[in-house]
Amino acid sequence: MTRWPLPPPMQRALILAEAAAAAGEVPVGAVVVRGGEIVAEAHNAPRELSDPTAHAELLAIRRAAQALGAERLEGCELWVTLEPCAMCAGAIAHARIGKLYYAAPDPKGGAVEHGARVFEQPQCLHRPEVYSGMGEAASAELLRGFFAARR
Amino acid sequence: MTRWPLPPPMQRALILAEAAAAAGEVPVGAVVVRGGEIVAEAHNAPRELSDPTAHAELLAIRRAAQALGAERLEGCELWVTLEPCAMCAGAIAHARIGKLYYAAPDPKGGAVEHGARVFEQPQCLHRPEVYSGMGEAASAELLRGFFAARR
Repeated sequence: MTRWPLPPPMQRALILAEAAAAAGEVPVGAVVVRGGEIVAEAHNAPRELSDPTAHAELLAIRRAAQALGAERLEGCELWVTLEPCAMCAGAIAHARIGKLYYAAPDPKGGAVEHGARVFEQPQCLHRPEVYSGMGEAASAELLRGFFAARR
Repeated sequence: MTRWPLPPPMQRALILAEAAAAAGEVPVGAVVVRGGEIVAEAHNAPRELSDPTAHAELLAIRRAAQALGAERLEGCELWVTLEPCAMCAGAIAHARIGKLYYAAPDPKGGAVEHGARVFEQPQCLHRPEVYSGMGEAASAELLRGFFAARR
């Protein structure tokens, strides 16, 4: 069987998630793309950076805003290996990210299709288009392996 | 009439909010306190920093974690002049902030007693004790003045 290849930004996000795991961080990777080009990328790094806000998405958004010299990332896409939490979903809305692609759902911590459902709140000022599922198996396997090794 | 004075951390947060307004940023200030001492502080600065995540709370939390060299701010309090949004409420939970004090409610963007109600989600891993209202009038007046001057 030939599997359809993952889009390059999700392939890259998965590689970043693997790098996170190798560094002892929960394996999540994120990439910001504009016009088909990667603007910024990050992996989860709260331990390395002593920063509870250093989730992959938040770091990638901050780096992209720095790279573009703009507070808003209009026309940008965010590709991430796990459903964003409330903090990261809020950051995605503040940054005016146009499209959000995430691989695996996160029933325990996600806030897009679970929990706080940040983009579904009537007060939410910006809702990205949301696409999920591409790369789900690979992302879930990375997370399972990471947590299994720590038990 | 003698008014009861505001606790010093909220007085300081309001001064930071004024500094934000003077810099052309939405007037919100935040202070992290541990054992009665200020560990870190910040005002809203997304424009100055070209960073959509640079809300007062998020900056203060990041700076406190840096100052303490720890990913978690257990035993710390966060004092902020406005009800935190979903992004900042999520960061407060991730940082394990023990007590949250905020001055003014924010029906449009708040996510503590409005909208996403982040701490009320069953999946929320950490809920701070929440106290609101101290300094509400002063904070609301700063915000009103800021937005009135921009219309």
